[in-house]
Amino acid sequence: MTTTATTTTTTGGQHPLLEAHRETLEAARTALADRSYYSRYPESPSPRVYGESAPQDGQNAFEKARGSDFDALADQPSTGQSVGSEVSPYGPTLGVRYPQLDVDAAMAAARTAMPAWRDAGALTRAAVCVEIVEQINARSHEMAHAVMHTSGQPFVMSFQAGGPHAQDRALEAVVAALAEQERVPSSVLWEKPAKGEPIRMRKDYRIVPRGVALVIGCNTFPTWNSYPGLFASLATGNPVIVKPHPRAVLPLALTVAIARDALAQAGFDRALVQLAPEGDVAQGSDGLAKTLSMRPEVALIDYTGGPGFGQWLEREATPAGKLVYAEMAGLNTIVIDSTDDLRGMLGNLAFSFSLYSGQMCTAPQNLYLPAEGISTDQGELSFEEAAEQIAGAIAKFTADDAKAVEILGATVNDDVRGRATDVPALAQRLGGEVVLDSRAVEHATYPDAVVRTPALVAVDAGNETAYTNECFGPVAFLIRTASTDESLETFRRTVREHGGMTAAVYSTDEQVLEATREAAADAGVALSENLTGQIFVNQTAAFSDYHGTGANPAATAAYTDAAFVSGRFRVITSRRHV
Amino acid sequence: MTTTATTTTTTGGQHPLLEAHRETLEAARTALADRSYYSRYPESPSPRVYGESAPQDGQNAFEKARGSDFDALADQPSTGQSVGSEVSPYGPTLGVRYPQLDVDAAMAAARTAMPAWRDAGALTRAAVCVEIVEQINARSHEMAHAVMHTSGQPFVMSFQAGGPHAQDRALEAVVAALAEQERVPSSVLWEKPAKGEPIRMRKDYRIVPRGVALVIGCNTFPTWNSYPGLFASLATGNPVIVKPHPRAVLPLALTVAIARDALAQAGFDRALVQLAPEGDVAQGSDGLAKTLSMRPEVALIDYTGGPGFGQWLEREATPAGKLVYAEMAGLNTIVIDSTDDLRGMLGNLAFSFSLYSGQMCTAPQNLYLPAEGISTDQGELSFEEAAEQIAGAIAKFTADDAKAVEILGATVNDDVRGRATDVPALAQRLGGEVVLDSRAVEHATYPDAVVRTPALVAVDAGNETAYTNECFGPVAFLIRTASTDESLETFRRTVREHGGMTAAVYSTDEQVLEATREAAADAGVALSENLTGQIFVNQTAAFSDYHGTGANPAATAAYTDAAFVSGRFRVITSRRHV
Repeated sequence: MTTTATTTTTTGGQHPLLEAHRETLEAARTALADRSYYSRYPESPSPRVYGESAPQDGQNAFEKARGSDFDALADQPSTGQSVGSEVSPYGPTLGVRYPQLDVDAAMAAARTAMPAWRDAGALTRAAVCVEIVEQINARSHEMAHAVMHTSGQPFVMSFQAGGPHAQDRALEAVVAALAEQERVPSSVLWEKPAKGEPIRMRKDYRIVPRGVALVIGCNTFPTWNSYPGLFASLATGNPVIVKPHPRAVLPLALTVAIARDALAQAGFDRALVQLAPEGDVAQGSDGLAKTLSMRPEVALIDYTGGPGFGQWLEREATPAGKLVYAEMAGLNTIVIDSTDDLRGMLGNLAFSFSLYSGQMCTAPQNLYLPAEGISTDQGELSFEEAAEQIAGAIAKFTADDAKAVEILGATVNDDVRGRATDVPALAQRLGGEVVLDSRAVEHATYPDAVVRTPALVAVDAGNETAYTNECFGPVAFLIRTASTDESLETFRRTVREHGGMTAAVYSTDEQVLEATREAAADAGVALSENLTGQIFVNQTAAFSDYHGTGANPAATAAYTDAAFVSGRFRVITSRRHV
Repeated sequence: MTTTATTTTTTGGQHPLLEAHRETLEAARTALADRSYYSRYPESPSPRVYGESAPQDGQNAFEKARGSDFDALADQPSTGQSVGSEVSPYGPTLGVRYPQLDVDAAMAAARTAMPAWRDAGALTRAAVCVEIVEQINARSHEMAHAVMHTSGQPFVMSFQAGGPHAQDRALEAVVAALAEQERVPSSVLWEKPAKGEPIRMRKDYRIVPRGVALVIGCNTFPTWNSYPGLFASLATGNPVIVKPHPRAVLPLALTVAIARDALAQAGFDRALVQLAPEGDVAQGSDGLAKTLSMRPEVALIDYTGGPGFGQWLEREATPAGKLVYAEMAGLNTIVIDSTDDLRGMLGNLAFSFSLYSGQMCTAPQNLYLPAEGISTDQGELSFEEAAEQIAGAIAKFTADDAKAVEILGATVNDDVRGRATDVPALAQRLGGEVVLDSRAVEHATYPDAVVRTPALVAVDAGNETAYTNECFGPVAFLIRTASTDESLETFRRTVREHGGMTAAVYSTDEQVLEATREAAADAGVALSENLTGQIFVNQTAAFSDYHGTGANPAATAAYTDAAFVSGRFRVITSRRHV
């Protein structure tokens, strides 16, 4: 799996990592072009895949980091202070102390590192980025523990989404960036016909980076949501400063430390990737993200998190000339019209609602059901019967505490817990009706973890204020509409206005499916149809599924389309007669 | 030259324009990919190329439009009022009355027109766009008169830059947009290996437009600067509203009228392209551009003009979620170190300074010369001698009034005239010294035209305030530096800070050339080296030269790179098991 390239300097000729990663780049590029299935990094945490000692080594490394100074970043420019206040959503305090970044010195170091990285060229940068990802992959078990104990994800999900799936997204960003850069030839002989001899010019095209790139991480998917921006910026020549969420520093600290080592081994400046950690920020005071965003050196910003800061970036950073790629929040919607596989639908829905307690930006929240009920292979179900079946499927799926914690994970913060622990009060406030209450689940290993099963609240379609705010965490709405037509119209309108990262439909009627595709195109959201098996609406596959679209207010970017990478570099021509 | 496709409806199968323009699209796409020489539209206005009667027909059509209602746009939604206050920079009042657009109705019509255009697909849209450009090309002579009498460009330049060169830029934008859209496959069968049978999904990818696109034109290059944005937006599925400069409406009115007819002939809605004309706007009051920019329907804005409105767009429209592509102003720079072809250099410079009286956004303004002078094939020249030679070359080149007017054109507005007609006062205010005064040139045909030759003002490099504002029009600065090193450092720093659309260098020293390339890469500006023949720093060739870079404050976009087109559409996926 891991490449053992140990080059320490670039030579006059080709960089040795080019040969080492040529096949990977080729395969990834082909997959991206046709959007077919491709995964470089195995999603199974099995020792058969990652090595006999990998699970234990990973756990040991994580335990060693706890309560310690994070020395792997000791060579960053530092203020001399330490920061860090991470507490696992599962209970334990992490106690990792990170060196605080000296921002002035870090910006200067980043800019100094740029020219050699720029001049290395797109292909060498891509190969070095692949090497970074390979080295990250080798430490996937350690990363899994770091992601689990910062995000609250269950272990297997932490491994998969925090490890190989994030790494595949990184590789996708690298080849997307490479493809766009390689569309620009390095040189051309230009011949304009003229009377007599043609006019001949040689034109050289040079790809230049935009400036320092800032990546602002989130609490729930510290690696998965940060890697596309990080690697897209780095692969296009920009030095990157990573600002993790105060409660999810460790996964990105590991990432940055690995990247810096890999860069140095490849003969480049470690300052191309730097970490700007901070501890918990007092309510009402500005965090480091604002300071960094407004630095004149910063040209690119990738952000994942709540719409509050996202709107601040739009209001303040964008007019200051920064290019911002933001993923925020929306109303993920499922329209149920009919199904020929009720059992499959219920199982799929139960999983989608339960996974990580609905704390995914892609988790479904709004489920439209017609008041007249739905047709199924088990007969007609009234609205109430359908609601009951869905509630029953969730209750059954999460009935066993020991199994449930491996799907639900832990609630990430007090905001989520507040909603999950008093659903009746929430329902009353919103004018809804509790169809399924959230249940407290005991975690045998981590008794302090607050683990909750999904709740369902029924509301009428007319009660739009109830369901047009993002309700992050394990509460979803069953929305009673007059008909599937009203379901589709409300879906279209609310997602256009409030955004959405995902959408799904269940119908046996091809006309309804076609109408849903039209509504999804108008709403600017990706659509999953009749998922009844092992593919879930909240999951997107690198190289094939776009994560987000940029076409509605939930996000201004998609992982990974051309727009996500092509603005991160510019082309400078020099031309002369020959 | 012109295709006579007369299709009036789209059929169930392939659109007939696909076959008609297949070869053009193929040739243009190939040229764009390798950035080699390509031009679809002949730049010679000769009757041998455009037809015996073309010159006269064009003139007749222009004369007919004068003093009339512009009926070709009578089918637009209108307020019932007419607007129009164009006066030729050559003197005559145009007197064309345009129907004022009913903005509410126009926005509604534009949105109604979207779905069918979206669903036509990228290739059909590209073919229809080519058809529009072909029909525009057929009216190049008429367009030349319209451009001449709104911009003040001399006739041949009006023909070339306003006609075929602009048309080539349009075609470039169309194929750049096509290439980016075609990178997204329409469908894929995705197979993920699993225990037993693989998981199979069919995924369809649909390209959707962003919304209504607004194109805000400028006075000096109404077509050349508007076509890339217009056609990039249209080719990616967005309906376009064109807001011309109040003093340069006619060229874009012709363009929009032709586009609407071509769209209707091809079976699409005329409302995909609409004109929003206005008359002169009172000082201090908001023009129509602000109103249109802030309309909720508007998602994309292309703007060419002064930095004042450009900064307003950045401050107001960008935070409102509009994607803005702006070309504003900068300090176009020439560094002279040495030359082995003094005569060629002087001739080339004289032309570049004189062409359209320096009223091009690409015209050189700041010319750095070392105080110690320069080496040439005619011996060493002191700063004063070099300045004198350049002044002499300009004076000689513009000595004959009848010939000069065909290069200089007319000054476009009072602002330019103010600077050009009292250069000694300007020089005194700036602390500089007049090396060459601007001369009033008599225009035999248009005695009211204010035609001025270029002036040169010498300033010391230390007097930075004198030369770090754009001085639009026929005044350039000879900047006395301590050495070529100081020239390059000042070039790098001032263009990074204030922007620049073009740069050039003259040197016989390969090290100086290499250092200049580095400085240009840092400053983010395209570089021309040792131009001594028939290629000029102010000219960029479609398909090969990028116009602007987006890498410095002069512009946020380049004609035409991937970043210019890839953000104009989004991709919506729908996936299902098969």
